[in-house]
Amino acid sequence: MNAALIEAVDPEVRRAWAAAEHPRWRDPASRADALERVSLALKKESSAILDQASRETGLTRDELTPELARMVRALRLFADLVREGSWVRAAIDGPCKDPAAAIGPNHDLRRMLVPLGRVVGVFGASNFPLAYGVCGGDTASAWAAGCAVVVKEHPAHPKTGSLIVTIARGAFEEAGLPRDLLGYVRDDETAGFHVARALVSHELVCAIGFTGSRGSGLAIETIARERDVPIPVFAEMSSTNPVFITRGAIEARGPEIGRMIVSSVLARYGQQCTCPGLIFPEIGVDHEPLLGEIRRGIAAQPARRMLSTRVREGYAKQASTVGSFVPEVELLAMGGEGAGSDEAPALAYLTDWDSVRSVKFLSDEMFGPGMVIAPIDFAHPSAIEDVLATIGNHLTASLFHVEQDLDRAHIRGLCERLAGIAGRVIFNGVPTGVRVAGAMVHGGPFPATNRPESTAAGPLAIERWCRPVCWQNCPDVLLPPELRDGNPRGIVRVLNGVREAAGGA
Amino acid sequence: MNAALIEAVDPEVRRAWAAAEHPRWRDPASRADALERVSLALKKESSAILDQASRETGLTRDELTPELARMVRALRLFADLVREGSWVRAAIDGPCKDPAAAIGPNHDLRRMLVPLGRVVGVFGASNFPLAYGVCGGDTASAWAAGCAVVVKEHPAHPKTGSLIVTIARGAFEEAGLPRDLLGYVRDDETAGFHVARALVSHELVCAIGFTGSRGSGLAIETIARERDVPIPVFAEMSSTNPVFITRGAIEARGPEIGRMIVSSVLARYGQQCTCPGLIFPEIGVDHEPLLGEIRRGIAAQPARRMLSTRVREGYAKQASTVGSFVPEVELLAMGGEGAGSDEAPALAYLTDWDSVRSVKFLSDEMFGPGMVIAPIDFAHPSAIEDVLATIGNHLTASLFHVEQDLDRAHIRGLCERLAGIAGRVIFNGVPTGVRVAGAMVHGGPFPATNRPESTAAGPLAIERWCRPVCWQNCPDVLLPPELRDGNPRGIVRVLNGVREAAGGA
Repeated sequence: MNAALIEAVDPEVRRAWAAAEHPRWRDPASRADALERVSLALKKESSAILDQASRETGLTRDELTPELARMVRALRLFADLVREGSWVRAAIDGPCKDPAAAIGPNHDLRRMLVPLGRVVGVFGASNFPLAYGVCGGDTASAWAAGCAVVVKEHPAHPKTGSLIVTIARGAFEEAGLPRDLLGYVRDDETAGFHVARALVSHELVCAIGFTGSRGSGLAIETIARERDVPIPVFAEMSSTNPVFITRGAIEARGPEIGRMIVSSVLARYGQQCTCPGLIFPEIGVDHEPLLGEIRRGIAAQPARRMLSTRVREGYAKQASTVGSFVPEVELLAMGGEGAGSDEAPALAYLTDWDSVRSVKFLSDEMFGPGMVIAPIDFAHPSAIEDVLATIGNHLTASLFHVEQDLDRAHIRGLCERLAGIAGRVIFNGVPTGVRVAGAMVHGGPFPATNRPESTAAGPLAIERWCRPVCWQNCPDVLLPPELRDGNPRGIVRVLNGVREAAGGA
Repeated sequence: MNAALIEAVDPEVRRAWAAAEHPRWRDPASRADALERVSLALKKESSAILDQASRETGLTRDELTPELARMVRALRLFADLVREGSWVRAAIDGPCKDPAAAIGPNHDLRRMLVPLGRVVGVFGASNFPLAYGVCGGDTASAWAAGCAVVVKEHPAHPKTGSLIVTIARGAFEEAGLPRDLLGYVRDDETAGFHVARALVSHELVCAIGFTGSRGSGLAIETIARERDVPIPVFAEMSSTNPVFITRGAIEARGPEIGRMIVSSVLARYGQQCTCPGLIFPEIGVDHEPLLGEIRRGIAAQPARRMLSTRVREGYAKQASTVGSFVPEVELLAMGGEGAGSDEAPALAYLTDWDSVRSVKFLSDEMFGPGMVIAPIDFAHPSAIEDVLATIGNHLTASLFHVEQDLDRAHIRGLCERLAGIAGRVIFNGVPTGVRVAGAMVHGGPFPATNRPESTAAGPLAIERWCRPVCWQNCPDVLLPPELRDGNPRGIVRVLNGVREAAGGA
């Protein structure tokens, strides 16, 4: 066991803890400037980052380019959010003029969000070395909240991580801030669990962001709960992202939908949390226009290297379980098998409704370029209920439909039910491709995540690292500026239940 | 073991599950009307409720009257919140005119909060039979979110609970809604844990609200985590609510502060989650004006009946531990000892800084009319840090100060540190007495609660029972009305990052 890796955690956390107290970091304007500098520095080094990430992950530059843009622009989004300031949800309830109008004692109450603590631990993902890596969404949002971050690097791409760390720390130093606002620790095969435990159980760590497998996510959550003071873990874990296709949609544009699904499954070789792994075409229509395109698209796909041997093994195992143990399953198509030990073929299985209902593991995540297709009767009174009960919860659920479907009661019912099993419901589109914006929800009920009230993308992601504090009858000078009379920060606040205009003093 | 009590849980949950689907309950306007009807019905029966609650709890009508008002008015507050509608945090990001301006694919995204599920389980508190009872804040906020509620009655006041259930169900029926929107189950000495487990582990229950002891709260959380699909538990557990008093404040108004503290500790005979149990006067000043009033006030207090034998036993045990095992502790004052088996004396202990630092259990909650006083050196470089590290986290932290203290750096530092250990920081006042308003935070870091991001009082309490869902490129007719074009519900929304005026179509 590599003890040095484990021992490296404590000093890294302590340095981050000290760095978070820097006055310029606690000041929103200069913190926002620093985030912007990190963003610019990463953008400037785009080419080097893309080269390194592509070498380490097997993902193409074309695949990584939008991811890099997302990392760079999400940092800027959070810089803007911190500058604008309303994310703290400031609310002021002054004493009521008529004390009897107050529910309870007629105090002056002022509330805003504050950071949960000083150091957030982030576990980098294997599959998104940039957008969920060292300077990905978890790190950016925790920084925005005012925390320092210690990242546990994913062992699949250490050189990419190191490069990003160097760039980000350099940007902090240029901004006159401590480089230790970004801590960085590693593990290896022997030390993995111990490094995780050292980080998650560290008394100075206040919360954890995690993107990865369900097993690892739950193990980390268990460590976090067994602390003297438990801390929250925000774990994005597993999702099979069901796609429902009405017969009208198949008739109208079956081949096009087939190509969209193939393209979505093969993007980044299926190694995306939003990869559509369960396809449910409605029965009562010829499926060949849809299935033919899927068959052709998958069969034409040469084998690709996967992110790591472990990822390939996990994919192969789930595929073999589906292929061997499901009674009514057919291999619809297989891509090239490849030769390298990290290569694996794209796969499409075809099965039926009864199998989906009766074989629970059919809906487990097959992390990689694989999908299971099962035609079902959307109009059957219990078919949809049965399927949804079996497949559980996901990050996304999608529906391909046509205009006429909007009059079909069971299609409307299906739409409503989809909102019950996912954080994002998608119409006439594939689940891959996350737009980072205020209204995005990248999250979902268990087991998609362990915290369905949160999102890992978009500005609301900042709230994961915060808690509200109320100051009661506090002298103005002791209040945080966000809550003072005259609104010196000029942020949008709620004053006695009414939204105050921004601008302030 | 009373099996009937355990078996009663499942049908009660199933009926609530069905009731939550009622179209008039899913409609915000009629749900708000129903909440208002429940509020009015409870108000109308105030006198009967107060009589019954006073008989069962030993609390006086004077003590229960503001609590009843709080229950009645909190229901109305949530009715208003549901009617106003902005609590769903609706946000719409239309496609950017310049697609390159979108971070990721240029989709139309629309987000709002939806209920976590259909049935919330609520564990009624022993100490607030009304405000944290059958129709207390947890129930009211879960109803407001659109859930049905099944309450597990606290065995200390079943008749009060039954009366409230009858009134609330009657109000639902008058509103044309199912009475089963309020489910009601009980336990007893033999069945307690099993009833709790039946409710918390029920597959149709989506979340739990709990107010009570740390042991019970953590046991319930463990059950919730061991489910196939874990659910959140919002547990308000234990808090000792430290009060710091500067020497300036003692000099200026020591006796007055002493009386305020005595009055706060004796209100409801100390059986409040916000009861101030740890008093830290600053050294370097004569404490007698403060301590004299505390001594007199406590000594003059006749013994009172406590909420239950169990509560009295817990109080006596912690008091005896403090009195017997703390090296430097002195019984400053004791009230009347009483005679009944449920009676206990008010207590004030005096100790020193070293004891607080070295005896961890000194800062454990002594649930009842007891306090521990320990003068400390506010200006000592590590005294405050040591004390805060020892006493842990709380619902509230209070500071009595004078104007001149605002120039003392260590007092300013103390204020800032207090926001780090509590959900509410109080100035020149006592922690008892919660104003229910938008800016209130009734919560705090562990072990005060297990969910520091939440509040159990005020409108934000509704968010405990919700999660966000995003609809991507959804046809207008399939969207929830809150997110449709033209804003048919007329609620405040965020449109492309800018707040939209209410009013709508």
